[in-house]
Amino acid sequence: MNDCLFCKIVAGEIPCYQVYEDENFLAFLDINPVNLGHTLIVPKKHSANLLELDAELSKKIGPVIKKISNKIKDSLKSNGINILINNEIGAGQLIFHTHIHIIPRFKDDGLKHWPSQKFTAEEFQATAKKINQ
Amino acid sequence: MNDCLFCKIVAGEIPCYQVYEDENFLAFLDINPVNLGHTLIVPKKHSANLLELDAELSKKIGPVIKKISNKIKDSLKSNGINILINNEIGAGQLIFHTHIHIIPRFKDDGLKHWPSQKFTAEEFQATAKKINQ
Repeated sequence: MNDCLFCKIVAGEIPCYQVYEDENFLAFLDINPVNLGHTLIVPKKHSANLLELDAELSKKIGPVIKKISNKIKDSLKSNGINILINNEIGAGQLIFHTHIHIIPRFKDDGLKHWPSQKFTAEEFQATAKKINQ
Repeated sequence: MNDCLFCKIVAGEIPCYQVYEDENFLAFLDINPVNLGHTLIVPKKHSANLLELDAELSKKIGPVIKKISNKIKDSLKSNGINILINNEIGAGQLIFHTHIHIIPRFKDDGLKHWPSQKFTAEEFQATAKKINQ
């Protein structure tokens, strides 16, 4: 896509701090990182987000996520890895080209997960039924 | 694994609000959800986390994540979907059986993403080099 930032990075028109490349995927450092080493994996072929990723790339993306997560964890000696994929603006997606955040975590980095809410058994049952339909 | 909560759910020894099942994966509502509809996808075969998921399941997990994310988005009319995978205790993992959080997002749900940090070009370059090695 002409106006897509990540398509331009894939095409080499905009530079990046590259950490991985294969036939289908490119990975580079997020320049607005949560922690140093925060990496984005992008399919070279444009799609808006994971909800629209084509079937072949959907099969290939799991092994790439695993491989790069392990590379980051081992090379940076991190205490864990968060993998985050934001789909659509309502979920905080900012660049509308599929990308997977790989975030290395370090002791005392202070990052907190979202709080949980309480619901009734009836609400859970009705929700599971809706999703199942 | 004998003492694994998610293995017991897979075996039917502990009940769940199921939303999906196939040969290799089970998905059910998180009972400590961030939002109603927050779902966990687990491989039936035990592994500690995605960093250790076997090669065959790594290929199969992408299409399942996409399918269930779309089912949740469409059935609950959510404004977006966050997909989150926490690997190891340092990344907030609490149950040591691979699981993928699928979190539907709703307008004004108030959930905020982690803040970014600033680093120098030299720090980015040195980090990319470490990961690449």
